[in-house]
Amino acid sequence: MRNKTRLNNVLKDSLLELLGKRLNFSAAICDRHGQGESHHPGMAPEAVAFARSTEEVSAIMRLCDEHNCPVVPFGTGTSLEGHVAAVAGGLCIDLSEMADILEVNDEDLDCKVQAGVTRKQVNQHLRDTGLFFPIDPGADASLGGMAATRASGTNAVRYGTMRDNVLGLTAVMADGKIVKTGGRARKSSAGYDLTRMLVGSEGTLGIITELQLKLYGIPEAISSAVCSFESLEAAVNAVMLIVQSGIPVARIELLDDVQMDAVNRYSKLNYAVAPTLFFEFHGTEASVAEMAERVGEIVHDYGGGDFQWASRQEDRNKLWQARHDAYYAGISLRTGCQGWPTDVCVPVSQLAACILETRRLIDEANLIAPIVGHVGDGNFHVLFIVDTENEDEMERAAKVNTAMVEMAIGFEGTCTGEHGVGLGKKKYLVREHGENAVGVMRAIKQALDPKGLLNPGKIVPEL
Amino acid sequence: MRNKTRLNNVLKDSLLELLGKRLNFSAAICDRHGQGESHHPGMAPEAVAFARSTEEVSAIMRLCDEHNCPVVPFGTGTSLEGHVAAVAGGLCIDLSEMADILEVNDEDLDCKVQAGVTRKQVNQHLRDTGLFFPIDPGADASLGGMAATRASGTNAVRYGTMRDNVLGLTAVMADGKIVKTGGRARKSSAGYDLTRMLVGSEGTLGIITELQLKLYGIPEAISSAVCSFESLEAAVNAVMLIVQSGIPVARIELLDDVQMDAVNRYSKLNYAVAPTLFFEFHGTEASVAEMAERVGEIVHDYGGGDFQWASRQEDRNKLWQARHDAYYAGISLRTGCQGWPTDVCVPVSQLAACILETRRLIDEANLIAPIVGHVGDGNFHVLFIVDTENEDEMERAAKVNTAMVEMAIGFEGTCTGEHGVGLGKKKYLVREHGENAVGVMRAIKQALDPKGLLNPGKIVPEL
Repeated sequence: MRNKTRLNNVLKDSLLELLGKRLNFSAAICDRHGQGESHHPGMAPEAVAFARSTEEVSAIMRLCDEHNCPVVPFGTGTSLEGHVAAVAGGLCIDLSEMADILEVNDEDLDCKVQAGVTRKQVNQHLRDTGLFFPIDPGADASLGGMAATRASGTNAVRYGTMRDNVLGLTAVMADGKIVKTGGRARKSSAGYDLTRMLVGSEGTLGIITELQLKLYGIPEAISSAVCSFESLEAAVNAVMLIVQSGIPVARIELLDDVQMDAVNRYSKLNYAVAPTLFFEFHGTEASVAEMAERVGEIVHDYGGGDFQWASRQEDRNKLWQARHDAYYAGISLRTGCQGWPTDVCVPVSQLAACILETRRLIDEANLIAPIVGHVGDGNFHVLFIVDTENEDEMERAAKVNTAMVEMAIGFEGTCTGEHGVGLGKKKYLVREHGENAVGVMRAIKQALDPKGLLNPGKIVPEL
Repeated sequence: MRNKTRLNNVLKDSLLELLGKRLNFSAAICDRHGQGESHHPGMAPEAVAFARSTEEVSAIMRLCDEHNCPVVPFGTGTSLEGHVAAVAGGLCIDLSEMADILEVNDEDLDCKVQAGVTRKQVNQHLRDTGLFFPIDPGADASLGGMAATRASGTNAVRYGTMRDNVLGLTAVMADGKIVKTGGRARKSSAGYDLTRMLVGSEGTLGIITELQLKLYGIPEAISSAVCSFESLEAAVNAVMLIVQSGIPVARIELLDDVQMDAVNRYSKLNYAVAPTLFFEFHGTEASVAEMAERVGEIVHDYGGGDFQWASRQEDRNKLWQARHDAYYAGISLRTGCQGWPTDVCVPVSQLAACILETRRLIDEANLIAPIVGHVGDGNFHVLFIVDTENEDEMERAAKVNTAMVEMAIGFEGTCTGEHGVGLGKKKYLVREHGENAVGVMRAIKQALDPKGLLNPGKIVPEL
């Protein structure tokens, strides 16, 4: 799908002068930059600018502002709700060449990175320091993109989300101005929380170019365990009691039987095809043993099988790689089909009801859709495996998606725990927050991006 | 100090019709509502409205909007940077009669309260549930006020600040519209983070009327310990190593020798008059013992004395009451004088340098000013005990304050870790965040409160 040209010749020439070969017009590059990792139809930008510094992003943005050209920031293109689709055409700013780790302050447990650094890259860089960055959304996403979509993932139950782990940011605003937010202090009451305003704003308020991140000491002891259950209900009830008991488990992941089957096939494993919990415990030797014992007791009370343990790093890596491949494993269930991932998050007391009803709705609609979840947070995902050409099937998936979202909101939960709004969840925003709160979001967007140039069409529903 | 009348007769009549006797014009009441707990000169509002519901606050705000009358929200008046001073006159909205605890969801570890509920009240209410709300700024402040100033206090090193512990809010905006933000899910990526925008906005963007708060299970074991050191440097270096080791201590408080002397006198205790650390450990019996042992080793390496332990609740309460009375103990050092509290927060690696230089500056300026700190976060406070009539002394205190703030900002820290900006720290905001970021704050304020009616003159410096 193409739009009217927003990148006029004068702007093109100015950008070429600034970027030379790093301004790319090829159809293949443009197409790839308009497409995330989900079923949302791609919408290519007119060109892609590969920026190398905050100052360069600022210069690009000043030119685009002058020529009223829309801009879509791009990290690794692993987002799931159509965030990178260039719905109004214009320019994509690819930040992947901004991949320098600028500082590691091991005494203060923080580091500063450019927005294009990925989470695996930062952990690789940190490997000799005894520190790590815990946020892990599965994909090897860029940290700028993870901040922009307020990503979280498997470790969030213990370490929080990007909201909690970004100490400060550098961002380029709609007029090209460079703004620095936050700092290196662990807390501050000095004015409006611009860091948290930009985290989760999906490139609609500013383009994040640098991040100051919290780091953590690699725990003295780490242990992972897998445990299967006879029913989904028993597994989820066990999780609820573990969370309510306040046991600080680092990861509690649920995979339902459909997902376990897919994982076994895709990753050549032989786990039981049954609802399964994956756990990870972080701490001292003694505290890990204590946590594992207490969790083991709860799991046993709910009829869970014996723990299969993985304490060696290579075994743990294999286990978590299988979990992270859940998405690709799911898609491989049906050749020629695409994944439509959706996620909601509810208060943990409603988790069992919500997941069971979701499973019922999926089966009733005759869809193939594994369920996985970061259930320690009350967050779960459905991956509809759909033939996007089949209108009836797409409609059935859309209906289940809407029913899930409405159920989650009815339980005072949210239409997305970690995937973000993008294009896919826009229509639920008023239902979740109310007209007045969405009106406040619109007022902020209007104040900071009056021409609507920053990732237009995302998050805030049109009036 | 009085301003021109902003509360005209038509508005007065409308408010009287709405509130009856709950609209108060008495000088004593108005004076008390224009004065926080610090040296900042009081500025009385023209009247005080005692609101009883969100809808009533909304009705009041609609009337004030119609008549261009400034409004200052008021909780308990325990803020420290002049936040409640009615610098433009107008109406104070006192929320202390909105003191209902609306729900406790013990399965989900959350509760919903009206903004006037105080932190002690909520914990008293929760006493039979096994849950508690950890944020503890010392004063028995209202939770609405704590959210508005992004308060934290002694437990923040383990449990975070109000930023981390407010799941959602109800607020009345400048035009009287009621906005609900957040929800009860533990995480969400659904749009701009309006909760975090309002937390710390000090009543300048909206009036917080209700809060959904995170709760925590009361730990199975709690132990407190006190330990004195030969030098301030040794005490702070011990803290740095404890933090860097990632030991999850619940509280690490520093009191310098001046403060310990004041505490002994005020609370009739006989601790050593030396730099002292107060610790608290939360966890299971085993993990508390393990943490205490590891902290004990570090403390010993830095020449710290033996721990004086308090494991019984009444002993712990006595210990922490002494810590919380530090402010009043400080003021009592000089009869007829007032406290000028200030706080900064720095990366923990800079804490020793920052505290030692601050002590040197205080002594050089011949001021009486104990130092206390939530040092686990890199946050410390100076309490200048000043004769506010003595211009020379006030000027010397102001100079030390500015030097502290500039040093903290130079270390990539912040001009206030938890007291907020109010009137006192406004002049440092550009120095900390830069013109561009302050410009973004101004644009948000302008968008959401175009007439400048909400707590005017606070946070955002005038152009």
